[in-house]
Amino acid sequence: MDLHILDHRLRVTSISKDGLVHFTHPLIKLIFLRNRTGCKFFSLTETPENYTVVLDEEGFKELQPSEHMQVEGSVWLPLNVVSNGNVSSSSQAVGVTKIAKSVIAPLAEQHVSVFMLSTYQTDFILVREQDLAVVVSTLEEEFSIFREVEGESVPVQEVRNGLHKNGKEAIQPTVHPVLIPQNHFCVMSLDPDTLPSIATTLIDVLFYSNRSDPKEGTPSTADPELDCIKFFSFSLIDGYISLVMDTEAQRQFPADLLFTSSSGELWRMVRIGGQPLGFDECGIVAQISQPLADSDISAYYISTFSFDHALVPEEDIGRVTEMLRHQRKEPAAS
Amino acid sequence: MDLHILDHRLRVTSISKDGLVHFTHPLIKLIFLRNRTGCKFFSLTETPENYTVVLDEEGFKELQPSEHMQVEGSVWLPLNVVSNGNVSSSSQAVGVTKIAKSVIAPLAEQHVSVFMLSTYQTDFILVREQDLAVVVSTLEEEFSIFREVEGESVPVQEVRNGLHKNGKEAIQPTVHPVLIPQNHFCVMSLDPDTLPSIATTLIDVLFYSNRSDPKEGTPSTADPELDCIKFFSFSLIDGYISLVMDTEAQRQFPADLLFTSSSGELWRMVRIGGQPLGFDECGIVAQISQPLADSDISAYYISTFSFDHALVPEEDIGRVTEMLRHQRKEPAAS
Repeated sequence: MDLHILDHRLRVTSISKDGLVHFTHPLIKLIFLRNRTGCKFFSLTETPENYTVVLDEEGFKELQPSEHMQVEGSVWLPLNVVSNGNVSSSSQAVGVTKIAKSVIAPLAEQHVSVFMLSTYQTDFILVREQDLAVVVSTLEEEFSIFREVEGESVPVQEVRNGLHKNGKEAIQPTVHPVLIPQNHFCVMSLDPDTLPSIATTLIDVLFYSNRSDPKEGTPSTADPELDCIKFFSFSLIDGYISLVMDTEAQRQFPADLLFTSSSGELWRMVRIGGQPLGFDECGIVAQISQPLADSDISAYYISTFSFDHALVPEEDIGRVTEMLRHQRKEPAAS
Repeated sequence: MDLHILDHRLRVTSISKDGLVHFTHPLIKLIFLRNRTGCKFFSLTETPENYTVVLDEEGFKELQPSEHMQVEGSVWLPLNVVSNGNVSSSSQAVGVTKIAKSVIAPLAEQHVSVFMLSTYQTDFILVREQDLAVVVSTLEEEFSIFREVEGESVPVQEVRNGLHKNGKEAIQPTVHPVLIPQNHFCVMSLDPDTLPSIATTLIDVLFYSNRSDPKEGTPSTADPELDCIKFFSFSLIDGYISLVMDTEAQRQFPADLLFTSSSGELWRMVRIGGQPLGFDECGIVAQISQPLADSDISAYYISTFSFDHALVPEEDIGRVTEMLRHQRKEPAAS
């Protein structure tokens, strides 16, 4: 298999709920007026806490510094696994599960933080630029590694043995609480040429729906399965659009423009983290994706500024719930 | 003929060119998401100087006070002339010319300031609420006057003779310089249901075109006929959309959605005012519309925060230019 280090230098930012109004102008430009920016990698995810915006440096220039925006300090590089010369999207239903053992686990063992961004088309594994040498030395046994430079795939030189790897001492990872909200999600795409047709709906959902839903807010932790969660993700990466939304949001869009995988599968969410996770802890993705891989359960995985989110097929949510309970050493429900 | 005092209490505001970015959120809401606001009268006009926003009090609530926004201090009421029970839009090609002698001239004589807003459908004559009694007493001989209250047209009581009218001393009005830019304009409408189809184009033109045109800026006064002017007007009033744009902007829109009058006429602009006109001077509209009426030349008329703009049929621009030169006592061009 091939691993490609894509030609995007990414920033990970967070815009506060109240601050979104101040970023409407640049965000609408980034979403709908691609020709007016040089941005080629853009992702916006709304969660109950904030809006996570991941974008390349060209896009980042559009965002004015503001008290309403937090910026993670590093530059992140997206990695993409390509099997047999085909982008892994050919088996997209498998999602992050497919790379759990080959990429996620080895990086976690080397204490490399990853920020995951699954889309309809593929799964991006974001790593810090400063960790790149460790990433390459960790994965070069399993993968042929290429760096994309101005449209060309350039083989990455083998890292000499003397390179410092992070220590390999096994650290018992924190087992984070999880939340399993009631919504059903769909993972969809859209022909970029038809994006204008859903512009007002998308604008309404992204920028004006925040205060209208009385159920809104951080889900109650009293009963972790009771509530629905606000979660909406839009990405426009190298010309491909991906949307993740729950079925309630989906109803606002014209049914004939958005498309999902042929199975039309619905997904349930596992949100990872009781307190915001930060960016330095390693192994969070591995903790979820390894047992999913052991059970061969497909999953999308979307990291945000505060929490991580795995999406699993709705028919598997029972098994996943059991698995997570077991991992947390709680007695299984009767 | 009937004169209707419409059931809208309007504010006239100006947003600076640099400040528009701070108003993108509320303006997009007012333009595209009518159901999320109670606004029923909204007009946005871009000129080289600023953006003039005229809107009712429900809409005005959406605009946060800001250093980037100026607000004219008065509440304005829109008047509308209705002939034979039909709104004057049935003869809309005649525009403001039709009401020059019956409304504009008498109000100017009474020193009542008017703010004109011609649309595809009709012509609104905005007067200050505090001038309403004078307006009624001035026009009640010529018109049956009705006040629209919650959808009902209520006849307005005759104003008793004792009412103070403004003095009638003839004041020689200032003759303002005019500018006749080179662009050709069209006055168009759009089915509100198809507004989403042009959303991204309209957003692009309104919010992102400002810095892209090197010709932009206040037209040079060195040669008043050399330059094109930036002028774009959008209004959404009682569910009717009207757009005024030049042919260059028009090319960005899909040809099949916007419609113009059957004649497909193009219009030339006369901008009135060398320095910003302010709101207190009376008789500016009368100065232009009276000679147009004498020559039976149709005209739209759009007041903005800084300047007034008359649009006349392109085939009449020669006659209008001569007329204006004569009015300014300049020798006619050879």
